[in-house]
Parts: sequence; structure tokens; C-alpha cells
Amino acid sequence: MKIAVDAMGGDFAPQAIVEGVMLAKKNHPDIEFQLYGKEEAIRQYLTDETNITIIHTDEKINSDDEPVKAIRRKKTASMVLAAQAVKEGRADAIFSAGNTGALLAAGLFVVGRIKGIERPGLMSTMPVLTGDQGFDMLDLGANAENKPEHLHQYAVLGSFYAKHVRGIANPRVGLLNNGTEETKGSELTKEAFQLLKAEKSIHFIGNVEARELLTGAADVVVTDGFTGNAVLKTIEGTAMGLMKLIKGSINEAGAKGKVGGFFLKDALYGLKDKMDYSSHGGAVLFGLKAPVIKTHGSTGPEAVSHTISQIHTMLETNVVGQLVAFFEQV
Amino acid sequence: MKIAVDAMGGDFAPQAIVEGVMLAKKNHPDIEFQLYGKEEAIRQYLTDETNITIIHTDEKINSDDEPVKAIRRKKTASMVLAAQAVKEGRADAIFSAGNTGALLAAGLFVVGRIKGIERPGLMSTMPVLTGDQGFDMLDLGANAENKPEHLHQYAVLGSFYAKHVRGIANPRVGLLNNGTEETKGSELTKEAFQLLKAEKSIHFIGNVEARELLTGAADVVVTDGFTGNAVLKTIEGTAMGLMKLIKGSINEAGAKGKVGGFFLKDALYGLKDKMDYSSHGGAVLFGLKAPVIKTHGSTGPEAVSHTISQIHTMLETNVVGQLVAFFEQV
Repeated sequence: MKIAVDAMGGDFAPQAIVEGVMLAKKNHPDIEFQLYGKEEAIRQYLTDETNITIIHTDEKINSDDEPVKAIRRKKTASMVLAAQAVKEGRADAIFSAGNTGALLAAGLFVVGRIKGIERPGLMSTMPVLTGDQGFDMLDLGANAENKPEHLHQYAVLGSFYAKHVRGIANPRVGLLNNGTEETKGSELTKEAFQLLKAEKSIHFIGNVEARELLTGAADVVVTDGFTGNAVLKTIEGTAMGLMKLIKGSINEAGAKGKVGGFFLKDALYGLKDKMDYSSHGGAVLFGLKAPVIKTHGSTGPEAVSHTISQIHTMLETNVVGQLVAFFEQV
Repeated sequence: MKIAVDAMGGDFAPQAIVEGVMLAKKNHPDIEFQLYGKEEAIRQYLTDETNITIIHTDEKINSDDEPVKAIRRKKTASMVLAAQAVKEGRADAIFSAGNTGALLAAGLFVVGRIKGIERPGLMSTMPVLTGDQGFDMLDLGANAENKPEHLHQYAVLGSFYAKHVRGIANPRVGLLNNGTEETKGSELTKEAFQLLKAEKSIHFIGNVEARELLTGAADVVVTDGFTGNAVLKTIEGTAMGLMKLIKGSINEAGAKGKVGGFFLKDALYGLKDKMDYSSHGGAVLFGLKAPVIKTHGSTGPEAVSHTISQIHTMLETNVVGQLVAFFEQV
């Protein structure tokens, strides 16, 4: 099991990335890590070199680089070399906390799509407020526009992931829509509804509304990339804003607030944990020939390690290989 | 100033509606109320009959009625009669807490569009977590699909409202998009961006992301009805879910939680107030020849009274008349 790691991507690279790899190594002695980036910078955070190969390069893609251009011009960037390794079979998966657009481009143009998949989608397992299960949602913004057939493929992709990687026996697949009735929605969602209804390989439960997402209305939620992106950012903005406001309210309440805050510290801390997306792993650009995984740029070692566990499960269950076989039959 | 009130719409009608009217009457002795619905049921909640006319009807539209059919077939429903009064100039605005789809249909087919407006949009003033100003967002779901020209008109409509009704001198208009750069987005948002940029009557500040909405990134946010609906419901779902979870955490924390909760009661209560959409008034179906205003079905007397104040301001400032004049010139 070989994972190509873009050691230079993210706000705290290479330190957070390399420290995360060191954590992950303890849980997964069966992974061989290829760390792409500045050897000297990487080496200072290595505490143990077993199963580690450093592939030195001076070039890297910056967070403000224009994605497609960067991939084409920076031929020796750490992210590009890592993607190349996957393409050529020298590695099984790629991990990066760098420029999202560039990773999407590297995934599409270097790693390549599974035959039969038209538009790979960005998928995350999102936390549910009640219960521990979470739900997989895609597309979260790999595409600005989607056709009904894409949403159909997302339903199959998400269902495969929930079943094989998350171990949910018969994942409930919902279509994000502006009402629950079959006749509701845009042309896109109305047509997608019919495709999902006819798809025998999934357990389609119909339309779900954005209001019910965090209460676990479905295990897999499919939507177009524009709406998915807006919903993801709205959840983040609302949750983060509210948590900040609560903290502010506690501070403003003076002594009274301090006492209250002290007694509620554990309760509020648990809540923060629950809403912490990074503990649920990274976002998968799903529909490619190998796992391509992205975490937040601000990601720390713990989240890197979580995400590597996620990749480990994806490789162990061979979810991508199973998808390839499925789409060959279709 | 005459307001046609659908006294039978909403989960707690007619009681909540009539009690709300009674509250509003105290602040606005210049409003004449026309209450449409069952006279007997309405009369028992009337504490003062000045400026009140009851127009009796036995028929009403239910929350699960198919909107367009209901409007066409239930010719004497309280909502339809109220809309008819506005159409015929016997009332200046209509208020309802009933079936949203039916009110949209009554607005479009009975009250009618302002000449030049293609697709009226549903608009609400949404709370901002930091500061008291809030922002107006449309379309929140009157349409399942929109064209760039509609978004252009929403920018003008929202800007008029923010300026005239909310008194913001030079409202910042943002386009909801999946990135802040001008080149980002779907075909719809890219084209809308260019239209908004060229529109001299508004103060366009560019794209805004869903993550920044609740921190007051713009005073007016325009989007298509499908995305707007998803974002609105995501805010509601996330905020309500989190508040519930906090309450749960406090309870679970046992004695410690009780002490903490006691000390933080005021702080958390203030937060709930802030996120209480009803205190910001109702949703306006904007772009029609008269104010058509909807509140939540579960609305209570206080929220009804708030919404009537909002209608009062809309009539006082003649925002619809000004819009008519503006679109005549275009």
C-alpha cells in the first residue's frame, strides 16, 4: 500500500503533513509513504524513517496559483510528481492539503477518470448532529454545473463509498431538492429523480431538503456542484458563526458568563468536536482511477493522520477497483 | 393604508393572526385592516373593532392543497378574496401565514407582476450574527430556475428594498457564488456578474460566498431560487440543530450543566432572539404590483405584528410605486 504525499501543500506544510504521517505510521505499518517536496525541510520533522521515501523537488504549487495553468507549467511541483506516481502505478493514492483546484486538475488530467464516469465529484463525509454516522455528500464543488446523468453517477459513487468504506449495509441515498415531493425541483433535479428511482443498485429514498441534512435524513446526498458548494459553505459559516457568538455571549455576560462557561466547557467542547470536519477525514475527488484526497489547507497533524486512515480503508476495501468493475458492466 | 389579511392562514389561525393584528393596531392607528375568514371565529379574538372590517367566507386554502389548483378552484378562499381586494384596489397589500405556494400563485395570477419584472422573487431580511443590520436575500425559492436577467432584476429589487424600507443609504449588493473571483461560477452566475457590474443604479460589490453571509458580507444577496432555497434551509437546519444540541449538552452535563445553563440563560436567550427570523418580519414576494407578504405557518401574534410593521413601512415609503416608476423607465 503506497501513498504519494504532497508534503508541501497546506498552510503548515511540510511540518503538519510530516508530523501527521508520523502519527499515521504508528497505526498503519503496512503503508509505504512517498513524501514529495524539499528534502531538507521534510527531513527535520521525520522521527522514524521506516516505510518513508523522500522524493526531492524544489517546486511547489501555491494556494493562489491558477489551478490548470499551475498543473501544466509546474511539471516538477510536489503535487504534480505525486499525481504522476499514481498515474504510473508507483503509488496507489495521493494525499494533499494544497490548492484544491490544482488537485482537482491533477486528478482529472494526470490520474484520470474511471472509464464511464463523466464528471468526478468532490465528496466529504459530513457530521450529523444527532448520532455518529454522518453522511456523504457530493458534488461539493468539483463542477460548477452538472447534468442529471452526473447526479445519477454520484448516487452510485456515494453509495459504493458508504457501503464499502463506511460499512453501512444499505445506504439511504437522497437527492437534495427544494421540496420532498417527486414533482418538485428544477429540470435537473426532476430528471435526476427519475434516473435515481430507476437505478436498481442503490437504495433511493427520494428528495431530501437542506433543512434535514444535519439530522441524518440520508446516508448519501447527491446534488450539483454549485448547490453542494453553497450548502457546505453555509453549514460551515452558520456553525462557526454561532460557536463564535456563543463564546462572545459567554464573555459579555461577565462573571456570570465565566461561571457558566466554566461549567459548560466540556459540553461545548464536545460540540466543537462533533462539528469538526477534519476528524471525519478529507474530501475525496471521487470517480478517478485512484483515491485522490484533499484536506483543509489549515489542517494539523491529527487531521492528516485521520485522513490517511481513510485512504487506508479506501485501499484496503478496493472501493475504486470495485467501481471500475461496476462501470465496466454498465 | 388598507391591509388585506388572510385570517385563516397558518397553524394557529385565526387566533394568532387576529391577536397579532390587535397588537399591530396599537402601533399603527393609520392602518385599516380587512380580515378575510370565518366571522365567528375571528370575532372571538377581537378586543377592539376600530379600523377592522371582517369579510366573511367559509372557504380556505389548506397547507397541503396543490397551490395553483387551489387558487383556481377555491374562488372564495380567504387568501383568494384578500388577493382579489388588492387587485381591485380595495386594499394596498396582502398578508398571509398560509400555504406559501398558494400565496405565490395568488400573487402572480391575481395581484400581478410589475410591468418589466419577469420573475418576482421571494425575499427575506435574514439576521446577521455580528451587528443588527441583517441582509436581504432573494430569490429564496419562488422559482426553481432563473436566468441571468432575473438575477439582475433581483439586484435592483433588493437594492430598492434595502434603501427605501430598511434605510441603508448605499446598500452593498453581492452575487452568491462558489468563489469570489469574477471568473468563478456557473454560466448563470458568470453572466449575471456582468449584468450586475454594468448596472449603474446599484452598488455591486462582486461575488460573495455562502460562508460569509451571516457575517454581513453584503446588504443584499442575489441568487437563483433553487440555491437560495437550499441556503435558507441550510441556515435554519444548522442553527436549529446546533441550538438543540447545546440544550442537549447542557442537560447531559447533569448538575454541572444545570449550573452552567443557569448562568448562561441570558446569553443563550439573546442568541435565540438573534436567530429568530420572525422578528425580522415576513418574506416578501417582491416584484408584484403590491406588497404580498408571507410569514411562517407557525407564526405567533408578535411575529404577525412585526410583519405588519414591515408592510406599513413598505406602504409608507411607497417602495412598490417607486419600483413601478423605475421599471417603466428601463
